[in-house]
Amino acid sequence: MKAKILREYAKLIAQKGVNIQKGQEVWITASLDQPNFVEMLVKECYALGAKKVVVDWVCDKLTVLDSKYMTQEALNEMPNWQIEKMKYQAEVLPARIYLDSDDPDGMKYARQDKLANERIAKYAIRKPYIDAMDNKYQWCIAAVAGRDWAKKVFPGESPAKAVEKLWEAILYTSRAQSTPIENWNKHNKDLHAKCDYLNSLGLKYLQYSASNGTNLRVELLENANFLAGSEKSLQGIEFNPNIPSEEVFTTPKAGAAEGIVYSTKPLSYQGALIENFYVKFEGGKVSEVHAEKNEELLRQMVSMDDGAKMLGECALVPYDSPINNSGILFYNTLFDENASCHLALGRGFSNCIKDFDKYTQEDFDKMGVNTSMIHVDFMIGDSTLDIVGETKDGRKIQIFKDGNWAF
Amino acid sequence: MKAKILREYAKLIAQKGVNIQKGQEVWITASLDQPNFVEMLVKECYALGAKKVVVDWVCDKLTVLDSKYMTQEALNEMPNWQIEKMKYQAEVLPARIYLDSDDPDGMKYARQDKLANERIAKYAIRKPYIDAMDNKYQWCIAAVAGRDWAKKVFPGESPAKAVEKLWEAILYTSRAQSTPIENWNKHNKDLHAKCDYLNSLGLKYLQYSASNGTNLRVELLENANFLAGSEKSLQGIEFNPNIPSEEVFTTPKAGAAEGIVYSTKPLSYQGALIENFYVKFEGGKVSEVHAEKNEELLRQMVSMDDGAKMLGECALVPYDSPINNSGILFYNTLFDENASCHLALGRGFSNCIKDFDKYTQEDFDKMGVNTSMIHVDFMIGDSTLDIVGETKDGRKIQIFKDGNWAF
Repeated sequence: MKAKILREYAKLIAQKGVNIQKGQEVWITASLDQPNFVEMLVKECYALGAKKVVVDWVCDKLTVLDSKYMTQEALNEMPNWQIEKMKYQAEVLPARIYLDSDDPDGMKYARQDKLANERIAKYAIRKPYIDAMDNKYQWCIAAVAGRDWAKKVFPGESPAKAVEKLWEAILYTSRAQSTPIENWNKHNKDLHAKCDYLNSLGLKYLQYSASNGTNLRVELLENANFLAGSEKSLQGIEFNPNIPSEEVFTTPKAGAAEGIVYSTKPLSYQGALIENFYVKFEGGKVSEVHAEKNEELLRQMVSMDDGAKMLGECALVPYDSPINNSGILFYNTLFDENASCHLALGRGFSNCIKDFDKYTQEDFDKMGVNTSMIHVDFMIGDSTLDIVGETKDGRKIQIFKDGNWAF
Repeated sequence: MKAKILREYAKLIAQKGVNIQKGQEVWITASLDQPNFVEMLVKECYALGAKKVVVDWVCDKLTVLDSKYMTQEALNEMPNWQIEKMKYQAEVLPARIYLDSDDPDGMKYARQDKLANERIAKYAIRKPYIDAMDNKYQWCIAAVAGRDWAKKVFPGESPAKAVEKLWEAILYTSRAQSTPIENWNKHNKDLHAKCDYLNSLGLKYLQYSASNGTNLRVELLENANFLAGSEKSLQGIEFNPNIPSEEVFTTPKAGAAEGIVYSTKPLSYQGALIENFYVKFEGGKVSEVHAEKNEELLRQMVSMDDGAKMLGECALVPYDSPINNSGILFYNTLFDENASCHLALGRGFSNCIKDFDKYTQEDFDKMGVNTSMIHVDFMIGDSTLDIVGETKDGRKIQIFKDGNWAF
């Protein structure tokens, strides 16, 4: 991919993605295999006046080794300096960029059971800092074409060609092939108009049905908005948490879903693929799961904590979306979630609540914004999906028809 | 390079280099470009019973950007979590492995002045932790064939061929081409025998002279030993701090050198090469420096602090050494220092002092073990170098003759 185009993409991430403020710190999380793109991005961050750019390098292969050879006790340890690091971030509120280039199969050989236990143990320590930072900083997840990821998506191509094709697909779906900043200004305008319409309806329920057997009724929160595209932090700084982003989403009422829903795409979770699965809700909580592949991992996922059994997101994405039309299965949530209507199990979004700056974490818990250490999207959209909205007074409004927007 | 040979080399580093103890933590510092070798090394660490292996990834290119775009104030900041990290290491005493694969020119475009100020500012904070860990943990510096480094050493070769040749040179000089563990057992025996002889002489001075004009008299410490090869931590754990290592060295008396000494190889300092230089000592301290290239950097180096103007190491390496005989200029201190007699400006070695476990840092300062934030080796050996030792009672013993051991 040409350096000029990649530089424009890096600028998009720094400027529209996290919208770095002069004098702000920036923390980037990136995989080892992307030193050149990270260097470009760091330059763009400094060009926007970042005070300091810190890069946390991650390497799945080493996490796999840790999971195999470390004892559970050693894995669960959180030394004081790591707590101080979180405390520092909660104080400084850096802009955070997560570059995703991981091999979808990179964690296949990890000891998932031990890593799950580790997450549970550490979440208790991390939670106060996560809550303290909630809605107070800009963040953005964007993708970079990793070699192993590219080989998974384009198995028939040479590694170099696969990387080139994945870059093309990333830039196309991220609306970053040319004039990315202008594209995103227009895109956000379109998405915000959809939200305004949906928020004007006063919906209480969403009723999902599809030919695969999906039949699910989800209760929404009375004071929750639909959001899409750019958001604003509590300081009023606009940022785009996901590049790409096609979804219009809200945070549903935790513990208020009934029925069954079938997956329409594989779910990449902890570096493994859970395939052809369904999730059944009774009394608002997951009562049954089944998967043709990696059912155990799915079961483990919904057992992480109480919130992992309840919905934290309902996202609407037309079947006729750029990502879906590309015909590419990315094996990556950032893309696949923007190709299909989806739900998420786990943590909800407090910033969907109207006037969210007026409430505390406790208020959100009481309202029914789900809380959990996980937030995992799974795809449920196909060309037969119908979604009917129902207002408090029983009025029914078609939201999706045959997989696409009905309005 | 064949994976089997690299695995043996990784084992050498883990077993003889840092000699990991069961249940010990290991911290590895490595450059981004070495994920595969690091993965091998981490496996070997776990195989020896490491409790946890942490990798700190570094990237010169980002340090260059930081030095350019961050303010001096921001560079000098040391957030609390980084202090807690040092505190943690001083408590836990991990084995530390430094993998060196850096491009010798990697820092050429950095703002060296700002980085020097940063080091000065941070050293004041770091010093108590450095002192607290001194001699209490095993550490090892070893090399990995980085691409840019290889291109510098073998400019005429294709990148792949250059890397292959650098690997060969590293493994040859590190005595790791076959049966590395056995080689190092034998090598240590040879080196320790040389130390025993030198320590039996009771030398008070070393008088250096060579045809290039070098004429330097260095006073030694009465209670300092010559050391070489493997050392022992205060806990009695044997380790090899340098792979390769050919030098026999001692810590001279700080502030007690007189004369002039000429460099015989370029000095790679902060990613830049200082070439064809001399250093003049008067009253024990550097009184004058001159370099044909990067004199300003040399001047900055000796101005870092008071100790940077005084000697911290005298190392004896025969001109007829494997590294020198390879005819390769590595542009890397780990190798070039083992091809030639050298001196170091800056921090001395308290573990050269007889019964060093009985003294405090204050005692070492009083004795004349140099203290400084820098420790920089520079090469002074050539085929004409003579070194004459002089005992307290005026007896003279030829140590080096025409660049090689005289005994």
